[in-house]
Amino acid sequence: MNSEPPVPETSVLAVASHVGKQIVHSHTSRSHPRTWLLLTDYLHSNVGNKIAVFVLQSLGCDVAALNTVQFSNHTGYRQWKGTKVTAQEITDLWDGLKQSYLNRFDMMLSGYVPGAAAVEAVGNIAKELKEKSQAKPGSFFWVLDPVMGDNGKLYVADDVVPAYRGLVHLADLILPNQFEAELLSEVKITDFASLRAAVETLHSRYNLPHIVITSVSLPLTAEQASPESRPPAHTMSVVGSTRTSTGKSRLFSITFPVFEAYFSGTGDMFAALMVVRMREAVASSSLKDKASWLSDDDVDALDLPLAKAAEKVLASMHEVLSRTCEAMQAELDRELAGEPAQEEGLNEEERAKTVHLLKSRAAELRLARNWGCLRGPVIEYRAVKLE
Amino acid sequence: MNSEPPVPETSVLAVASHVGKQIVHSHTSRSHPRTWLLLTDYLHSNVGNKIAVFVLQSLGCDVAALNTVQFSNHTGYRQWKGTKVTAQEITDLWDGLKQSYLNRFDMMLSGYVPGAAAVEAVGNIAKELKEKSQAKPGSFFWVLDPVMGDNGKLYVADDVVPAYRGLVHLADLILPNQFEAELLSEVKITDFASLRAAVETLHSRYNLPHIVITSVSLPLTAEQASPESRPPAHTMSVVGSTRTSTGKSRLFSITFPVFEAYFSGTGDMFAALMVVRMREAVASSSLKDKASWLSDDDVDALDLPLAKAAEKVLASMHEVLSRTCEAMQAELDRELAGEPAQEEGLNEEERAKTVHLLKSRAAELRLARNWGCLRGPVIEYRAVKLE
Repeated sequence: MNSEPPVPETSVLAVASHVGKQIVHSHTSRSHPRTWLLLTDYLHSNVGNKIAVFVLQSLGCDVAALNTVQFSNHTGYRQWKGTKVTAQEITDLWDGLKQSYLNRFDMMLSGYVPGAAAVEAVGNIAKELKEKSQAKPGSFFWVLDPVMGDNGKLYVADDVVPAYRGLVHLADLILPNQFEAELLSEVKITDFASLRAAVETLHSRYNLPHIVITSVSLPLTAEQASPESRPPAHTMSVVGSTRTSTGKSRLFSITFPVFEAYFSGTGDMFAALMVVRMREAVASSSLKDKASWLSDDDVDALDLPLAKAAEKVLASMHEVLSRTCEAMQAELDRELAGEPAQEEGLNEEERAKTVHLLKSRAAELRLARNWGCLRGPVIEYRAVKLE
Repeated sequence: MNSEPPVPETSVLAVASHVGKQIVHSHTSRSHPRTWLLLTDYLHSNVGNKIAVFVLQSLGCDVAALNTVQFSNHTGYRQWKGTKVTAQEITDLWDGLKQSYLNRFDMMLSGYVPGAAAVEAVGNIAKELKEKSQAKPGSFFWVLDPVMGDNGKLYVADDVVPAYRGLVHLADLILPNQFEAELLSEVKITDFASLRAAVETLHSRYNLPHIVITSVSLPLTAEQASPESRPPAHTMSVVGSTRTSTGKSRLFSITFPVFEAYFSGTGDMFAALMVVRMREAVASSSLKDKASWLSDDDVDALDLPLAKAAEKVLASMHEVLSRTCEAMQAELDRELAGEPAQEEGLNEEERAKTVHLLKSRAAELRLARNWGCLRGPVIEYRAVKLE
């Protein structure tokens, strides 16, 4: 395998949480308050910005990480809590970088940001970087994962939604899941027609250059829609589009098998890989000197750099998740037969929690040992044009 | 290049500072207090545990990072300061890991730890892991960089020295520089005889299995000592030894060229690489099942896993530093001709500081783009037996 990085020198500002969605999955451990798990997650888990930073660095990017969930350092960690960075703190951190001339970024990746004001502060950083890049089109590119919720449920405050609506026009590529795409477009996605309408609304209302919806579970092609050839139950699709100069969509989808287990950090891995592969896809062409790396109108959906990038990203995702599944199963077989799960003196609830802890640990993404999957994945799932 | 990691599955607890020695090099930036630079270093620089974690992960280790310098999160970052984790906090963090069954480590790497009590807390973690491994010899290995000072100057409080003297017997491999080796052995190193005496004292007084002194600038071999073939001015050596069963040394040295520039984080890179290469050197032999991976007495200095590991480590170091030097020079040429260095209205002192900031940034280790140097370096500098 070639050890040359897939991208030219690329400086990325990564703004996200270290703990991210894992918070949602935390729970009380025997005789310890809930905060312990957050703490150990922080130390131990591959979630949030930790995953994004590792993926970006592994693929050759120089990364400055601005973590949006920080930790108080009270003398007694028993009172320890994850605390959210305020908007003012984000702005101050940014001013600090500027003051030391550390504010030159080719790309920015933003993920979970706590609260509407903090979202706006991140938007202001993007705005400043975008303005600075005006003189040199294509020299700055913002990949925004507008983390708001999933499966019809918000997991942020209500006012975060209008905050994203107010700044999403600054992004070059957004990575909403189906629910977040609905929130931004205000179009409910129930079939292919409404999916297209949602994407076109995002293109036109926000002038958004590139969109990838990361989890679509509709039958998308005529073949899929016919009763005899429905996609198997355990598949999902990403749907992407790069707008034309007149704001029309160029839609493609990539369908891939879904794993039964829940892995945290997959969204962050996806986003970081998109940053790298998008940069790679335009690096050797003249597109890199065009604002937002927008392909000419005569480029077909399947020839879009976005489609090429997404194929590689999903290939890496699938390989890492396959290997994580295997390793997880082996670890669980070992652990559940082992001492902690069988520990004496646990009542039923405590035992269930111990098993859950062991399962959480076993389900951590296996990134460090599967660098090859990040760097040189084999593309198995190809983009299909949607029309 | 093979993308398989050089080591089998390896879980490492990395205890060190994120900012490390960089603190020493901080300085006031125009119109901003000193704390800014610390802040931006934290966000941006490849120092301390950030480097160690990246190197360990890149080479296939699963890493839990316990950072010994944390940051207060006052609402106003203008009052922000790096604060040191207390001994109690380290102990609490460790208890948290245990509580979640996240305390199974094959290796531990510890670097800069603030204060004597915190050093002792880290020693207690090592002691516990070591005791747990008694039933399975070789299943835990502690690499300790006893960070205390350099070039005759302490940069920790005086009581850190006896703290290290009190726990260094728990370590499997220590990585002192020449000054730190003197502090621990209480032998002043001025020539080859005193170097040997220092190493043998470390072996015998602390029962230390493996020692690598990371910066020795003496003529070490008879050839080097003769006037006509002194080593060129810009070389340095590491000196290593694995003790025999009777506590005798088996000394080797590796001499390598020194770069003129100052790079921060080199000690952390060295230590992390030693962890990986030491593990690799014993992984496929029966040594891995012996306490402290101690070679039999008939193994020659040059055949020690320690010597093999150190050769690979220095090869990686040299390649990364060479590439960093090239990239640094290119960046400096660009920057010093550019806008910030020429900014209007700076007085002489301010301009000097700006140039210093730009130089600091340019001197950051180029790790992300030189993964191949970490993974598959070409060995140029070979170990030589010292007798």
